[in-house]
This record gives sequence, C-alpha cells and structure tokens, in this order.
Amino acid sequence: MSSPAFFPQDIIIRKRDGGALTKDEIEFFARGVVNGQFADYQATALLMAIFWRGMTPQETAWLTDAMMRSGDVIDLRDLPGAKVDKHSTGGVGDKVSLILAPLAAACGLKVPMMSGRGLGHTGGTLDKLEAIPGFRVMLDVPEFRAILQKVGLAMIGQTPQVVPADRKLYSLRDVTGTVECIPLICASIMSKKLAEGIDSLVLDVKFGKGAFMKKKEDALTLARAMVAVGKAGGKPVWAQLTAMNQPLGRAAGHTTEVIESIECLKGRGPADLMEVTLALTGHMLVLGGVAPDMAAAKKQMAAAIANGSALQKFREMCVAQGGDPRVVDDYSILPTAKKLLEVKAPVGASGFVSEVDALKCGHAIMALGGGRAAVTDKVDHAVGLADLIKIGEPVAPGTRLCTLHINDDARGTRAEALIREAVKFTPTQPPLEPLIQDLIT
Amino acid sequence: MSSPAFFPQDIIIRKRDGGALTKDEIEFFARGVVNGQFADYQATALLMAIFWRGMTPQETAWLTDAMMRSGDVIDLRDLPGAKVDKHSTGGVGDKVSLILAPLAAACGLKVPMMSGRGLGHTGGTLDKLEAIPGFRVMLDVPEFRAILQKVGLAMIGQTPQVVPADRKLYSLRDVTGTVECIPLICASIMSKKLAEGIDSLVLDVKFGKGAFMKKKEDALTLARAMVAVGKAGGKPVWAQLTAMNQPLGRAAGHTTEVIESIECLKGRGPADLMEVTLALTGHMLVLGGVAPDMAAAKKQMAAAIANGSALQKFREMCVAQGGDPRVVDDYSILPTAKKLLEVKAPVGASGFVSEVDALKCGHAIMALGGGRAAVTDKVDHAVGLADLIKIGEPVAPGTRLCTLHINDDARGTRAEALIREAVKFTPTQPPLEPLIQDLIT
Repeated sequence: MSSPAFFPQDIIIRKRDGGALTKDEIEFFARGVVNGQFADYQATALLMAIFWRGMTPQETAWLTDAMMRSGDVIDLRDLPGAKVDKHSTGGVGDKVSLILAPLAAACGLKVPMMSGRGLGHTGGTLDKLEAIPGFRVMLDVPEFRAILQKVGLAMIGQTPQVVPADRKLYSLRDVTGTVECIPLICASIMSKKLAEGIDSLVLDVKFGKGAFMKKKEDALTLARAMVAVGKAGGKPVWAQLTAMNQPLGRAAGHTTEVIESIECLKGRGPADLMEVTLALTGHMLVLGGVAPDMAAAKKQMAAAIANGSALQKFREMCVAQGGDPRVVDDYSILPTAKKLLEVKAPVGASGFVSEVDALKCGHAIMALGGGRAAVTDKVDHAVGLADLIKIGEPVAPGTRLCTLHINDDARGTRAEALIREAVKFTPTQPPLEPLIQDLIT
Repeated sequence: MSSPAFFPQDIIIRKRDGGALTKDEIEFFARGVVNGQFADYQATALLMAIFWRGMTPQETAWLTDAMMRSGDVIDLRDLPGAKVDKHSTGGVGDKVSLILAPLAAACGLKVPMMSGRGLGHTGGTLDKLEAIPGFRVMLDVPEFRAILQKVGLAMIGQTPQVVPADRKLYSLRDVTGTVECIPLICASIMSKKLAEGIDSLVLDVKFGKGAFMKKKEDALTLARAMVAVGKAGGKPVWAQLTAMNQPLGRAAGHTTEVIESIECLKGRGPADLMEVTLALTGHMLVLGGVAPDMAAAKKQMAAAIANGSALQKFREMCVAQGGDPRVVDDYSILPTAKKLLEVKAPVGASGFVSEVDALKCGHAIMALGGGRAAVTDKVDHAVGLADLIKIGEPVAPGTRLCTLHINDDARGTRAEALIREAVKFTPTQPPLEPLIQDLIT
C-alpha cells in the first residue's frame, strides 16, 4: 500500500464540511492517533466534526477496520471449531457473559471473550470474575489461546497490544463530549471484537433507564451500524435489542452476581436473566453452526444445564485462569460483606411494583463502594444487591424489596434511600414490557 | 470574582448541543487555554463545536473581553488626545496602514497600531516596515508609549504579553479547520485591538478574490459582529466593507509598497488606494472627534498631504523606530531587486482589462520569494510587483501589465506566468464595481 502524506487539517475540513473521508484518510487517522502524526488536538477536532456530520456505513466500516489493525489482531484460524463471541453495551445486573460463555462452550463453541471493567453505574465482567479468589483476567495472547483451545472459553481483559487506537480515541472522547456518537461507538466496539479473531458475533444492545442508550431508536441505529460493519468485514453479526429499565436478574454487584450466575448454570436462574442469556447463547450456537435453528439450540442448552456440562465449563475456566473452582459449590469463599440489610416496603405499600429504576440501583451499588467513578478506583467486590424485587410482583407493608450486602452503615443508609427511590408501586398489575424487542441480522 | 471549578467537557457538551455558554465558562476557557486547565485537545473540540453551533453576540463579546484580559492590556488613558486605530482583514497590495497612520497623526490623532506579519498570499504591515533599513517593529510597551506620545503614532508588532489566549487559540485553529468562523475571527481581531488601549476603531473588512472572506455576506456578518463587540466593550467601532478582487494600488511586495505609500503621502498615490485610505482615515478623524464630519475630515487630510505634515509624521516615525528617514527622499536605500522584468500584453491583446485576480497576484509574490508559506519563513523585501495595470484600463499588444522586481530568473518566470493568468481582457469597457460598498456603524 502506498503511504500518502495527508495533512490532518485537510481531513478535518472535509468532514467539517459534511464530506465523506476516503479509506486512506481514515487509515491515516487511526494510525496517526497512535503514532502521533495526528495530534491529539487535531483528533478531537475531527471527532467533534464526526459527532456533527456523522459517518457513512462505508466510512464506519473503514474506521473499524483501521482501528482494529492499529494493533495486534489475534489469529485463531488454526483452532478447530467456530469462534463466536457476545458483546453487551452494558447495564445494571448484566452478568450474562458469566453464564453464556461456559454454556456456549459446553455446546461446542469456542468463546474467545475480551471484556472490560465497570465504570459509573454499569458493572464490568472483569470485575465480577475477580470476585473469585485467584481469578486472573490479564493473560497474554499465548495463554489466552491455550486456555481457549483446552477449555473452549477464556475470559480476559483487553491486552495493551490490541486496538491501541481505540484506547487513545476513547480517552480523548471521554473528555471532549464526543462519546455519544453512533459511528464512533460502533467502531470502538466492533474493532475490539473483530481483533479477537472471531468468526461471528452476537450483540446485546440495551436501551432504557439503566443503559448507555436511553432511547430504543438510538439502540436500533447502533445495532444496525454494527451489523453492517460485521457484514463489511465478512463476519456475520446479529444484534438483539434488550430493554434495560430494571436490573437484569435479582442481583447486582460482584459476589452477588457471581452467585446468581452459578445458580443459573445450575438451572435455578431468574426468568428474565435466563430469557436474555438463552436467546443470546442460542443465536451464537446458530451463527456458529452448532445448532441448525433456535429450537435445536434451546434443547442443547437445556441439556448442557441439566447434565452439568455448562457448570463444569465454568469450573474448568476457573482452574485454567487461576480461580478457586470450589466457588461453584461453596459461595462462602467469595468476598463476603459484613452485614446484610433488608430493605422492606413501607407501611401503606400495596399493589404491585411498577418500576425498579436500573440507574438508581446502579447508583446504590456506587454508594456501597461497589462501583467505580474513575478508572483508577478500586471496587469492593463484597457489596451489592440481592433478592431484588421485579416489576409486576405484588407488595404489601414489609415485603422485601432487596437485600443489601454492606460493609459500612453510612453507605448502607445511602444505598437504602436510593433503592427506596428506585422502586415504585401501582395499585393494579402493570403491563409488562417485553424484554427482548428486536433482532437485527 | 469567584473561581468556579468547571469541567471543560461540560462546557464542550453544552456548546455541542447548541446551548449558549455563560460569562464564567467563557472566561474559564480563555484563561484555561493559557494556563493549561483547558487542555489543547479539549480546546479544539470546543472550537469545532463553536464552528458548528456559532456564538451569540453576547458570547462573542464575552469571549473577546476574556481573551483581551488573558494578558497585558495597555492603558493609554493618561496620554492626551483621542487614541484611534484601524484594522484591515488583509488583502493583496493593502498598504493603507503606512499612509493612514502618519496622515491621521498629522491631523491630530494618536494612532497606537499593533500589526501582524504576512502569511500566505496576503502581506503584513510589519514586513513592509522592515523593508526600511533599521526599522524596528518589536518594541516593548514603554517605548511604544513614549513614541506614541512624542510622534503621535507608533507601528509595532504584538508583544508576547498581549492576548496570549489569541496566540494559543489561533495556532490551534490553524491546524484544526476552525479558522473560518465569524465569532472566533471577531474575538481574535477585537481582543488584540482593544488591548491596545484605543478609544475607538475603524475596521476595513475586505471581501473578494484576494481577501480572507470571499463573499460579501460573510464580510458583512463579520463587520456587524465586530461593531457589536465594540459597542459591548464601550468602544465605538465603524466597519467599512471594501472589495478586494484586484490588488489595492499598483504595487505589491515590500519595497514596492513602501515606495507607493510614500508617493501617496506626497500626493501622488493611485486613485483606488487613496479612495480607501482617505475614507478610513476620515472615519478615524470623525470617531476621534478631530473632525466634525467627513467633509471637514477630507479638507484636513488634503491639507496634511499638501503641506507635507503627513509625510513629516512618516519621517518622524522612522527616526523614532530606528528606520532610516532618508527613505522618504531616496528610494534607492530600500532593498533593491537585481532585475526588473516587464510583463507585456501578448500579440492579439485588445480591449480592456476585465480582471486582475488579486489571489494570483499574491501567489506571484510568493513565487518571487516575497511571501511566507510558514510563519518561520524569511521574506525577500526587494521582490514584488509595481506598475500593475487596473481593471478598466485599455490594452493593446505590448501594453505593460506590470513590472516584476525579481532576484531569480526561474522565480521570475513562474511569477510572470501567474500574472498572465491573473490579468484578463474583454473587448468592451467593463462595468466598474464600487470599491467601498458599505459602512457599518
């Protein structure tokens, strides 16, 4: 490939004026933010111009590809089996990955999953895994490959060599008001996922109070953009649209979510969490060619849970990644909070739960010390929510709304107040919004 | 004043979403780009958002004021007399300042003029003055004041202590596609002029082929914005709109323009240059209260030229600023080019000049080595254009189109080709566009 000498300002001006950038210009940008040919102060001007003018599907696909190739791209072609991953745009109580990855591996897929940490009100898969004593998430690529080959799944953090352009661009977007931009979000997510060496991908795009995207239309636009980028890169991508107004499942935090995930693998998971997990895992099995259709996928997943093979995969992953596998049978080895505090419906409460505000629940976890306001913050794995009441369930005075796992009374009091704000009642049974609202293929 | 702690990203997001910034936010920005609280990569994102969303007149006035106060503001209140300056948005052959400042001083004004250097196809007043042997433009404020008091005018470069926010912002705008933005241009110009300690200001806003603003509407918008900022700051500002399709006068370069300026002060200037200069100087005299109206101003200016007092002010300025005053009577002490090259109308030429493209003439000066592509380039003061033909003048084969002052044959050939492209003919006398098209007060 030739190396044309571009001036960053020419590229900025073209986008500023509403034009489309060329493949070479976009490549110069993605490389340039890493090697310094595109200065930070020029990158942010371009990011704001992209925020304003948008990007065509072709530009978005080029940007994704260029960002992916800004660092190491893992090649898993020599590993037998279909490599399929899942990515969620994040939410409160979303522990789907911890259930889905072992379940999909038990059904015959290879799941090479690189995840992130929590920030703000949304939790992160890596933080949840680290609640398991000894569990290592920062593995290098050779170890990642070896575990993937042996166990069928591996769940790690992004290595510094993968998609450096995204790390750089994200850090700039975060402080320049250019985060909420569909083509940039799309390229950020897809470049990281495609760098994993996957054959295909299932996306869980959340919308609602507890999600990054508040509006369904925005989630739909993002889902379509990511599916299109997958197509452009020759990788089938399906995107599910999932409502995230109340937390997923009845637990949120780290220890509490690990427990709920293992319960799911034992066949005792809450209905909403299982619905989302089985839909996403099912799509992975179909995309990976392990199941001919969703009905067959559902049978395979039911069998993998019933015969214990999904739980066994979770155990094997723990062993391979240094975590204590006894966690599966003994939750007391997880970090445990000093106190449990039951939040109960007040005198006069009656009728049904009409709302469990996911954002406020996320803030309650932050209040307990289980969240991260800045990337450098440490999280307290022991604290969190369990036994959370769900929309549509009946209430009376004294009905338990949730159990708070707390390490500090003052924090507990703040969290309790947030939970009381989050949960609202209505005299009559409220209509239930469907959880899964669309599938873009 | 309180010092509220702002986050740059909140300010960026408000502007990104089309909101108006507060006085405190704008002040934080102007101070922050200088002291580092507003990082460069955040400043450029905000600049692009301003490019997109614009600024209200109130925001523009606040930005101008905050930029002005980012450094030293010269206080000339103790100097007797009205302090009035002029600023031009720049053009090819625009040597008005060299004539206007001594003329206005001869009529009784104090003219505290801080000017810039040339860049690209437009020349700069400082470069032209430096063609005069010994002339010093980088004076400190005490010397500037002393000369202003003694001579009535001083023409210097901006000191590093004046409006540091503009220097920083301009250097960022220049490389991020955010130059052509009316509120930012307005704040940049006006903050520098108001920091001079003036009582009032006349602006010459150019539009056309050789100007920064190509379209009259844009020039009008900028003119109105600057007049409004002056009003907001309590300083009367008048803005004249001047067409700049062909160069102003018959000379362009440095030595050639100094000669033409002195000729004007001797009463032998070309009609178009004198028209613009007398209009602008006249407005200064009226604004400064030295003349009751334009008719009176014209009489005073005619007298100052006829009795030699304007020329004498030029001579005194040279003495005060280290320049050789003999230049007024002996042009041979200016840097002189090795060769003169007459560009003549070709065989078959007939009719009248319909166009003398100012931009191409500017490029011809660049080709000769008399311009500056980058701020660090050195200019050759000796080269340039003289005897330039004007729109509407008759042509026949052999008619002189201009005289090139050259130091290098190859460069001369390139410049000649550009002049031949610049000058176009028409069989019939073309309609003459008025030079001065509007006055905003």
